[in-house]
Amino acid sequence: MKKFTSVRDVENINRLVKEALIEKQFPFANKELGKNKTLGLIFLNPSLRTRLSTQRAAQNLGMDVIVMNLDKEGWSIETKDGVVMDGSAAEHIKEAAAVIGQYCEIIGVRSFPKLLNRDEDYSNEVLNKFIQYAGVPVVSLESATLHPFQSLADLITITEIWNSKPKTVNSKPKVVLTWAPHPKILPQSVPNSFAEWMVRADVDLVITHPQGYELDTRFTSLPPTGGEGRGGVAKIMYNQDEAFKGADFIYAKNWSSYKEYGKILSQDKNWMITNKKMALTNNAKFMHCLPVRRNMIVADEVLDSPASGVIRQAGNRIWSAQIILKKILEQL
Amino acid sequence: MKKFTSVRDVENINRLVKEALIEKQFPFANKELGKNKTLGLIFLNPSLRTRLSTQRAAQNLGMDVIVMNLDKEGWSIETKDGVVMDGSAAEHIKEAAAVIGQYCEIIGVRSFPKLLNRDEDYSNEVLNKFIQYAGVPVVSLESATLHPFQSLADLITITEIWNSKPKTVNSKPKVVLTWAPHPKILPQSVPNSFAEWMVRADVDLVITHPQGYELDTRFTSLPPTGGEGRGGVAKIMYNQDEAFKGADFIYAKNWSSYKEYGKILSQDKNWMITNKKMALTNNAKFMHCLPVRRNMIVADEVLDSPASGVIRQAGNRIWSAQIILKKILEQL
Amino acid sequence: MKKFTSVRDVENINRLVKEALIEKQFPFANKELGKNKTLGLIFLNPSLRTRLSTQRAAQNLGMDVIVMNLDKEGWSIETKDGVVMDGSAAEHIKEAAAVIGQYCEIIGVRSFPKLLNRDEDYSNEVLNKFIQYAGVPVVSLESATLHPFQSLADLITITEIWNSKPKTVNSKPKVVLTWAPHPKILPQSVPNSFAEWMVRADVDLVITHPQGYELDTRFTSLPPTGGEGRGGVAKIMYNQDEAFKGADFIYAKNWSSYKEYGKILSQDKNWMITNKKMALTNNAKFMHCLPVRRNMIVADEVLDSPASGVIRQAGNRIWSAQIILKKILEQL
Repeated sequence: MKKFTSVRDVENINRLVKEALIEKQFPFANKELGKNKTLGLIFLNPSLRTRLSTQRAAQNLGMDVIVMNLDKEGWSIETKDGVVMDGSAAEHIKEAAAVIGQYCEIIGVRSFPKLLNRDEDYSNEVLNKFIQYAGVPVVSLESATLHPFQSLADLITITEIWNSKPKTVNSKPKVVLTWAPHPKILPQSVPNSFAEWMVRADVDLVITHPQGYELDTRFTSLPPTGGEGRGGVAKIMYNQDEAFKGADFIYAKNWSSYKEYGKILSQDKNWMITNKKMALTNNAKFMHCLPVRRNMIVADEVLDSPASGVIRQAGNRIWSAQIILKKILEQL
Repeated sequence: MKKFTSVRDVENINRLVKEALIEKQFPFANKELGKNKTLGLIFLNPSLRTRLSTQRAAQNLGMDVIVMNLDKEGWSIETKDGVVMDGSAAEHIKEAAAVIGQYCEIIGVRSFPKLLNRDEDYSNEVLNKFIQYAGVPVVSLESATLHPFQSLADLITITEIWNSKPKTVNSKPKVVLTWAPHPKILPQSVPNSFAEWMVRADVDLVITHPQGYELDTRFTSLPPTGGEGRGGVAKIMYNQDEAFKGADFIYAKNWSSYKEYGKILSQDKNWMITNKKMALTNNAKFMHCLPVRRNMIVADEVLDSPASGVIRQAGNRIWSAQIILKKILEQL
Repeated sequence: MKKFTSVRDVENINRLVKEALIEKQFPFANKELGKNKTLGLIFLNPSLRTRLSTQRAAQNLGMDVIVMNLDKEGWSIETKDGVVMDGSAAEHIKEAAAVIGQYCEIIGVRSFPKLLNRDEDYSNEVLNKFIQYAGVPVVSLESATLHPFQSLADLITITEIWNSKPKTVNSKPKVVLTWAPHPKILPQSVPNSFAEWMVRADVDLVITHPQGYELDTRFTSLPPTGGEGRGGVAKIMYNQDEAFKGADFIYAKNWSSYKEYGKILSQDKNWMITNKKMALTNNAKFMHCLPVRRNMIVADEVLDSPASGVIRQAGNRIWSAQIILKKILEQL
């Protein structure tokens, strides 16, 4: 593996999950693999889970880790080509990426969208220029459009929980990705990413949200000539209660509109996840990538109940990062 | 040991000091103990000594360390229960603590008081919720009311210096904790903590300050049914010169009023520690937890003289942290 | 070696470069040397290359590294003696340096000039007080007047490139340090430092800049009684085109005036390095310490051409730091 920015960088997601669960069982089995190797984690936006879990994963593999909050500890970076740099940006991303690539064997980059211009955000300029200029493997710590470490941890969690349940042979879990209200304008990266992993996984994916919150269909369906042999197209439903019926997993998340780009079209509190909503499901586990706003996205009663899987899900971020770093280290 | 937030978490402070001095003599003797273990240091307030000394102590024990300035590198944390999180806080402490506990074997937390509401500050909400939700041992890197790593380093320093002096059999040092002036409103955590350690130590403790600066008596005296077999009650004196007479250690510190909570009642420069004041003592060592404001708390002439023990005291922060981390690691 | 703040701390720069190139060839050969040793990197100003390369160098040598952005993670530091500290500074540099020296075997310090008062800046107060009070070896991560890790990396790069070229026996490269325009007021530390290394190296040094940008001659010439047996005096030329003729290395950098201290005297775009300018040289390599403002200091066409050596130069920062840390570790 030479980069990790999307499910499209993964050959076989089921095998990947199995391998991640082996890392979880034997966290220090590959401690020699990362010896004398440095992971550089470059943050252009804040992070808690991603930083700590990736740092821990790298340390489990014997790597050294350098964390750099580039925006706060360094300076502003220019990303456009051909610009006369007479403004606030002190360094061009061409140099920044190439230089960091001199000091680190692998680079992780977090760069959020500005949510002002859809084409600009969806071009993923920062991440792609890092890949282009770093000269070493780059992993996404959440880009403008996707959050693959999160989605892999989500799939690990779903797999763990589903496998521990008694069930009919060959049955698949029903996974519902549901929009929920939030006071601020948020990216589509987590739902985009979750969707593109789930349409490739052995699950039935339903996405429910108010009208106008449709995600980019490039992420919610496999291309017709996909050929992965499974998955398919997410079912979109505008009625949350209907969507929840028979669900095995409720994955809640807020996002702003993709169509009316970066707009908040609804703050309808009826979309908040409550015990009453969870009662519609098949005893579903509640999932969220965190951080989560209590009593906006989800009621305390759900988060504080045994139905919540969010802490386990966050814990699995380690194994998501560790299996990817392992695969990259093996091919250095 | 499962947590370290106060002297009350320690079974025998004299034995603890002895064990800390063994760490000082053999800093790397337990380097295997922390292997594959991560210490997470979570700061909600600035730190120099505490961060560096705890990081060093953990590294001496072979641990990996992750430092997170949660307020600056992450986001604002909600601590109240049942709140509708539609404001600035992006994550609840319940999730933050539990998630960090997924990535670290031990967590250290620094959280200062706001000095607006005494009951709120003295409930130590941030620290206590970390203990409640982290699922792993938590150590205080200074809470709203106490600073136990500092106090243990103080006792180590006093013990070292006292033991190196020729003295009468069974004599005890006279230790004076003295208030001193400062331009800003400061917490009571260092003096509270120093007092609760000293009333349990083999010393005679005098506390001197202007009227109105009395500390919470829960910290300045042992409970009647204490049963520790030593220590007792601090003697309070409003006359600094009288208090200094015959002192072996002068421990200076500013704090704001506990009674008129968070107020500055005096900025009287006569309380500054000078050579003239030190001349009243029994050739006492000058101590301060640092950072110290020169020529406010203490005159240059004292800090720059051989009477100052502040750098040695700061150096002992390593062994204070190291013995506690060692004890926790041993019981993981 | 007990400190590294200038070329004057180096006994033999040619031997040092050779030893640095051995580190580059065998990066992990001395991994036992730094075991149980901690490097503290203290930043009072932002950093990318210096932080990452020094951190990497220390890790290659087996050291633990603690990074502290003192201004952002700690508090404001007082540097003047005898002050009544009733303002914003919470700690005096005397204590800060001595305390950090308790926790680290080696300290690196970055402190930029304020560019308001020449005498004050050129006294290098922060760095010198760290040296005075830390009690352990101190290395400069760029001071108010010099940037020795950069200059050593520059000399390593020039040596590598020059040695790989076919050439006449005993010939020396012509190295041109050229001023270039920039929108902000910048220190003289990089050009000062480059000059003081080059006048001691086996090169012919030309410095070209608009009138008024003359550097302090203490850095651009060897003292008459130098005795190093080589080098000499930089040739100053006000005509950039003339200076470039026959050059083997073009080292571009902006700086503000030393004479009219901290002033911008020119923003003349004709001084920007372009392909046309490079065509005047002897197929020279383009060098810059980075970060560099594209199309201000240098045109894209040069930076994106094979003539640019800036990434290699940045990569060599590791070996510059590593050989110095190694020499200090060997004498601890």
